[in-house]
Amino acid sequence: MKVGVLGTGSVGRAIAGKLLALGHEVTMGSRWAESEALLEWLDEADESARGGTFAEAAAAGEVLFNCTAGEASLEALAAAGAENLAGKVLVDAANPLDFSRGMPPTLSVCNDDSLGERIQAAFPETKVVKALNTVNNQVMVDPGRLPGAHNVFVCGEDDEAKATVSALLGEFGWPRDSVIDLGGIEAARGTEMYLPLWLHLMGALDTADFNVQVRVA
Amino acid sequence: MKVGVLGTGSVGRAIAGKLLALGHEVTMGSRWAESEALLEWLDEADESARGGTFAEAAAAGEVLFNCTAGEASLEALAAAGAENLAGKVLVDAANPLDFSRGMPPTLSVCNDDSLGERIQAAFPETKVVKALNTVNNQVMVDPGRLPGAHNVFVCGEDDEAKATVSALLGEFGWPRDSVIDLGGIEAARGTEMYLPLWLHLMGALDTADFNVQVRVA
Repeated sequence: MKVGVLGTGSVGRAIAGKLLALGHEVTMGSRWAESEALLEWLDEADESARGGTFAEAAAAGEVLFNCTAGEASLEALAAAGAENLAGKVLVDAANPLDFSRGMPPTLSVCNDDSLGERIQAAFPETKVVKALNTVNNQVMVDPGRLPGAHNVFVCGEDDEAKATVSALLGEFGWPRDSVIDLGGIEAARGTEMYLPLWLHLMGALDTADFNVQVRVA
Repeated sequence: MKVGVLGTGSVGRAIAGKLLALGHEVTMGSRWAESEALLEWLDEADESARGGTFAEAAAAGEVLFNCTAGEASLEALAAAGAENLAGKVLVDAANPLDFSRGMPPTLSVCNDDSLGERIQAAFPETKVVKALNTVNNQVMVDPGRLPGAHNVFVCGEDDEAKATVSALLGEFGWPRDSVIDLGGIEAARGTEMYLPLWLHLMGALDTADFNVQVRVA
């Protein structure tokens, strides 16, 4: 599958690397096609890896991943271009964390709105699926590194898009029954507002290498 | 132990009932000492059960539980009286859910503040421990009803108070290693902001009878 990965940070690199290892055609997108982070990644990645601007990566992909910092996501997606996003599945793995007021970060949007909803509203012809934002980048692409069963959440307006993402999550190592469909994109409020608990858990556990399993009676 | 349970809703009744079954001396507090909910509970509860106003229940308890609706908690605690709360452990099990704008509810305080912090700030001589607000009332007092291990969170400024609460949670059936100490009362932001995810999970799972286990690498 042709996949565009927007963002050259640790999340983008982890997802792009996993997709390459799985045999997908990956184009990583950056604000500048010659950015240091992108060139460094291309230098180290599988030789099939491609890079370009956000717009070039979005145009190249059939499925897209938003791995930009949440604060910059809407601007990055605007740079990618609505025409390059239209009709495509966009996995939104970003969290709208605002570090400008110090630690712990706050969310720049929450409670009666979410980043996932804002992206869907800004790009109505794109099928946004919020996913993977509740775990760190290592767990995203290697869930088996944690003991026992644990869960990942998807939400979005398009069932077919969620099925496409769930299948990709399966390739990443997430068993079919570990993927919980929370419903429409409004549920992004839930997974984004989980971040403050995730951050406090990271402090209490002294590691980011964790996740939760939902236990039902 | 003498325990004051503030609030006659499903959470207050579940906690008071469990405490009575464990042999504690329980006084349930209500806005009005002759409230229908309180009289009904006293009629059905163990004969050792006592009831009164918020102030009478707070005065009677060595340890207190805030089981009022989050939107009404600060007013209820003011009615209980700072002098009756001073020096005591107050378990805050409430969530500041605001249903006034329809479903799903929003939080009336979140992101850079929390109900737990507001209660601690309003009653600085009280040892506030946020706990149990991440599970429904059945799971609160009977964690064994869910299969396998799962977790409950405590946070607050006073370590001794958190130890007292953890011991009570142990009596409720929460194994010692299921209690995760998230740190100071600021972490109440985390457990309260988890509520939107909890509500969406309740919708997806079609039950409120669930909880999460934290899996660490």
